[in-house]
Amino acid sequence: MSSTPRLFVESDLVAKGFAALDDAQAKYLTRVMRLGEGDHVRVFNGRDGEWDAVIDQVEGRSVLLKAERRLRRQFETAGLILLFAPLKKAQTDFAVEKATELGATVIQPVMTARTQAARVRADRLQKVALEAAEQTERLDLPVIRYAQALDAAIESLPDGAPLIFCDEAGDDPEADGGSDAGRAQPMLAALERLAPGCAGILVGPEGGFSPEERDRLRAHEQAVPVTLGPRILRAETAVVAAMALFQARLGDWRESGADDSFPKAIDEKS
Amino acid sequence: MSSTPRLFVESDLVAKGFAALDDAQAKYLTRVMRLGEGDHVRVFNGRDGEWDAVIDQVEGRSVLLKAERRLRRQFETAGLILLFAPLKKAQTDFAVEKATELGATVIQPVMTARTQAARVRADRLQKVALEAAEQTERLDLPVIRYAQALDAAIESLPDGAPLIFCDEAGDDPEADGGSDAGRAQPMLAALERLAPGCAGILVGPEGGFSPEERDRLRAHEQAVPVTLGPRILRAETAVVAAMALFQARLGDWRESGADDSFPKAIDEKS
Repeated sequence: MSSTPRLFVESDLVAKGFAALDDAQAKYLTRVMRLGEGDHVRVFNGRDGEWDAVIDQVEGRSVLLKAERRLRRQFETAGLILLFAPLKKAQTDFAVEKATELGATVIQPVMTARTQAARVRADRLQKVALEAAEQTERLDLPVIRYAQALDAAIESLPDGAPLIFCDEAGDDPEADGGSDAGRAQPMLAALERLAPGCAGILVGPEGGFSPEERDRLRAHEQAVPVTLGPRILRAETAVVAAMALFQARLGDWRESGADDSFPKAIDEKS
Repeated sequence: MSSTPRLFVESDLVAKGFAALDDAQAKYLTRVMRLGEGDHVRVFNGRDGEWDAVIDQVEGRSVLLKAERRLRRQFETAGLILLFAPLKKAQTDFAVEKATELGATVIQPVMTARTQAARVRADRLQKVALEAAEQTERLDLPVIRYAQALDAAIESLPDGAPLIFCDEAGDDPEADGGSDAGRAQPMLAALERLAPGCAGILVGPEGGFSPEERDRLRAHEQAVPVTLGPRILRAETAVVAAMALFQARLGDWRESGADDSFPKAIDEKS
């Protein structure tokens, strides 16, 4: 089943319900994959799980699917909110693609003092996320929020959710005046002290946060400053590394026997 | 100091010793950075640590540096060997760049049954690694090996080094006939059972390993099959995620108080 094409649709998915494809998807199925009436695909809509569907009708550019059987039930995931300072276009796309593969539920671009990108097109990023979700077997899509100023983005985090703040200057003994207060820790050690649940991960721009931003971040009661090793990571590398560590320690990469706030999809091979 | 340009040179580095730059580096310093005689740069050669150097002479396209003061001592790192099936050109470059940022000491392209790339240019990849090392504050360069067949690459691993095998089919209950023998575990849980030291990390091609390859890998005494969560990761994402988890749990991202087989660089601010 895993090589069967997998598409995101807007329609509700119920047994024998129909779903129309958009032009690009229709073209992909009929021209690229050379599928036709009677062939099977998999569809998901972020609400109703994943369904086996059959191509019911092909008329010119229009393709209609009929849902036949639910393959996986929808499940709720605890929120994993990525806040990142937008980078150059290719790197921003890359960060959104990888964050989708790694299970971000919300992607929030944040404008910081040293952010280079003047604006971010949320609609374009939503498309990048949609394509990544189709390929990565996700049942939901991350929500791409419009860019916000750093302080506003932090204020909009759920109450009590830790803000894991990747602090590339954390290893610098002079960065916090030599005091240990609010000192950044290796990320895995910091995660050991947190419980599974909703969290934000914040990655700064190339060039890092300004001293004023770092002071405000470190003073924030929800902030958990962390380091990612002795080398300087590019921002998009930090996004992947930090999300992988989070999922491995607190998220849905843990053993299925562990405390499961992030249940896995349930196969419905019946 | 961290915004001072940082360059890899071939020359030995000793106090008052000279080092010549190659054409591209010379052009970068004089044309792009607009530096001239008397300006400072940082240099490393993979053997003698990192040095503060002054631009001693600029003549046409030729730039001569003089090493003045050692900033960081060289240190030995335990080997972290990335074995990966080469991908499309851009993704392969990406994997090499990220593996360098994340501290791989050896990068070994491996040819598997489903590897798409027909050949790999080790010299081009070495250049990608060199540029990444310059930016990421590393003191050494990863060694890029010529591509090898999977079995030969595994045989060339140091005796006793675990081969952490990212087994994307590990979650499939039918993948190993329902037996628990050699069953893949979540990577972080598997790493808990290993000691710090030299290790290999193996990431397969798009489409995964063939059933025969998986059987041979799982039967190998050094193999530690691991999973990276419930979603399907692209190969280059798996490279970054697996290396980040390794460094965080067993490598040089750990707390400095931990058992330190991977010592950090020592600052020599004197």
